[in-house]
Amino acid sequence: MTRHYNFCAGPAALPTAVLERAQREMLDYQGRGLSVMEMSHRSSEYVAIAEQAEADLRELLAVPDNYRVLFTQGGATQQFAAVPYNLLGHGGQANFLETGIWGKKAIKEAQHLFGRAHIAASSASNGHVEAPRDSDIALSDDAAYLHVTPNETIGGLALDYLPSARRADGVEVPLVADLSSTILSGPLDVSRYGVIYAGAQKNIGPAGLVLVIVRDDLLDRAVDSMPSLFSYRALAEAGSMINTPATYSWYLAGLVFDWLKRDIGGVDVMAEINARKAGKLYAAIDASDFYSNPIAKRNRSQMNVPFVLADSALEGDFLREAEAAGLLNLKGHRSVGGMRASLYNAVPEAAVDALVAFMSDFETRRG
Amino acid sequence: MTRHYNFCAGPAALPTAVLERAQREMLDYQGRGLSVMEMSHRSSEYVAIAEQAEADLRELLAVPDNYRVLFTQGGATQQFAAVPYNLLGHGGQANFLETGIWGKKAIKEAQHLFGRAHIAASSASNGHVEAPRDSDIALSDDAAYLHVTPNETIGGLALDYLPSARRADGVEVPLVADLSSTILSGPLDVSRYGVIYAGAQKNIGPAGLVLVIVRDDLLDRAVDSMPSLFSYRALAEAGSMINTPATYSWYLAGLVFDWLKRDIGGVDVMAEINARKAGKLYAAIDASDFYSNPIAKRNRSQMNVPFVLADSALEGDFLREAEAAGLLNLKGHRSVGGMRASLYNAVPEAAVDALVAFMSDFETRRG
Repeated sequence: MTRHYNFCAGPAALPTAVLERAQREMLDYQGRGLSVMEMSHRSSEYVAIAEQAEADLRELLAVPDNYRVLFTQGGATQQFAAVPYNLLGHGGQANFLETGIWGKKAIKEAQHLFGRAHIAASSASNGHVEAPRDSDIALSDDAAYLHVTPNETIGGLALDYLPSARRADGVEVPLVADLSSTILSGPLDVSRYGVIYAGAQKNIGPAGLVLVIVRDDLLDRAVDSMPSLFSYRALAEAGSMINTPATYSWYLAGLVFDWLKRDIGGVDVMAEINARKAGKLYAAIDASDFYSNPIAKRNRSQMNVPFVLADSALEGDFLREAEAAGLLNLKGHRSVGGMRASLYNAVPEAAVDALVAFMSDFETRRG
Repeated sequence: MTRHYNFCAGPAALPTAVLERAQREMLDYQGRGLSVMEMSHRSSEYVAIAEQAEADLRELLAVPDNYRVLFTQGGATQQFAAVPYNLLGHGGQANFLETGIWGKKAIKEAQHLFGRAHIAASSASNGHVEAPRDSDIALSDDAAYLHVTPNETIGGLALDYLPSARRADGVEVPLVADLSSTILSGPLDVSRYGVIYAGAQKNIGPAGLVLVIVRDDLLDRAVDSMPSLFSYRALAEAGSMINTPATYSWYLAGLVFDWLKRDIGGVDVMAEINARKAGKLYAAIDASDFYSNPIAKRNRSQMNVPFVLADSALEGDFLREAEAAGLLNLKGHRSVGGMRASLYNAVPEAAVDALVAFMSDFETRRG
């Protein structure tokens, strides 16, 4: 059995300790005579697993009591639809801060379903290499909420602030954030948000599962007609079990939360480790004329680090040799090319050390 | 490690051989140095896994070339919404054959989203113990399709025919079937259907994944506005990868298809085994005044066998003693009570033998 270093942007690396535990429990969960994936979601054994996962998540992120935690399906993409369905029932318009490809997809879905969407600020004019400032954000007078993507997984652009989300009339609207690629990478002040959602396949668990954290008072803003499974209120009232949830993925998420709590020591420790990892990689890029990262320094992502070679003709060789050295999935997103190293929680510091050493060696040989 | 006999209605038992293989491959898939759940869904390794799963399913069910196979999310419940969104774009009304709780839920969702739904026939008047005949089905003049639930998982009622789905004007409308609890339990004439869908957590794999098989010519009947992920056309064009699919569940489904093909020998052999299993249990029930099944004999389900004791006060003891004997999850659905044994593909014949022996012993001691 070999475990390579996996820099995939998602589905991403999972902690080896989590996979080992899942492996041990695969055929017989704690002497119950069956796998977790064979358990009724209504059984006391499974409900205990699900509730422990939620409790651990709440503890890790210090989620306030007036927020509901939902475990649902369909990826962040499904939330691009679920958010406007759940928040536009009292009228008004979805507003967006656009800083990359994922935010653009969220805008497109709101436009598709509701006929319009207001882009309150965008970094499109600079190719999404530097984010607008808070003062650049101009909400529409009828803004019902402001949607942000604090970390753009493809572009590698991260916001260095949280928008104030205030309309011209002084009303502060709920802030909605797609935290797919940063959730649990460090501490989070949940109380600043109205809705947080995150696809699981980066820092939480396997693809398919989506986490939603929603403030209680927003549960009554839904439009009348939407697929029942999209309703935050219905999900909250059913404990995310309107129908059979993705039980095994939820269990694996629980194992990841447990690992983060007990093995790592929580999100503060994780944040230090993540800062060190990203710091080492950016330092290596900055110290060289051979590698470069296009993002303004204040907006550099700690989770997704895109970079290119001065000589793009060498990229194919770089990727092939990296893979041969056990450094997997460094190819940039098909829409942008180049390279990208995703440094999620489960990517160990040793992986970054190995990558930096490989980059240095490659430059020496080929630069 | 102990494996008990698991009669859960869903999430249900999986083949031990499948879980063993998943266990072996958990940390390192075939020497690639990572788990399947850590693979990019766009990687050649993962695409090969996904394509093989589809190819095996197509072979198992002899799916004609003019049908598309989709791997999506949200359970059958999400399809209760997706079907009318995808089939009512040319106008007309959803029609339903109602034979139990799941069909009723599908009706409710279509009514919720489209304001109306026509119940073409129902067994509600007899408490869903005997299905309407084909000649009882009266489609509305504007019927766009007929939705059926050929096997009602909770009630244990199975249709003994496939409706002709012909309107008074002679037009045959597409037949849409929720096959969650029977798919792959035996051969299927896919060409009789317009759309087939099935939640995975009974005969396919882990909860969360949903399989949709849709006839090509129905891909142009969608309404204009629905969540992008619900579009059969978009899913078909993207190879079910509009966004990151539930990659690990899809892989596990592939392992189940492989098991069914190679270990069992296909759906014809599976059908014989399933007929024997159900036959033994119904024979035990019928041979006794102590146990009874409420369903008309022509409508008895081979997958879900509900039964009650003549003295309902003994049910608690029955369930406790069964569990102690390693016979798990025999409790009936919370909405109907009593007992239910689900005899899906992964429940071995030995499990039914053990259940029948336990029932006989319990009756001798307590009857």
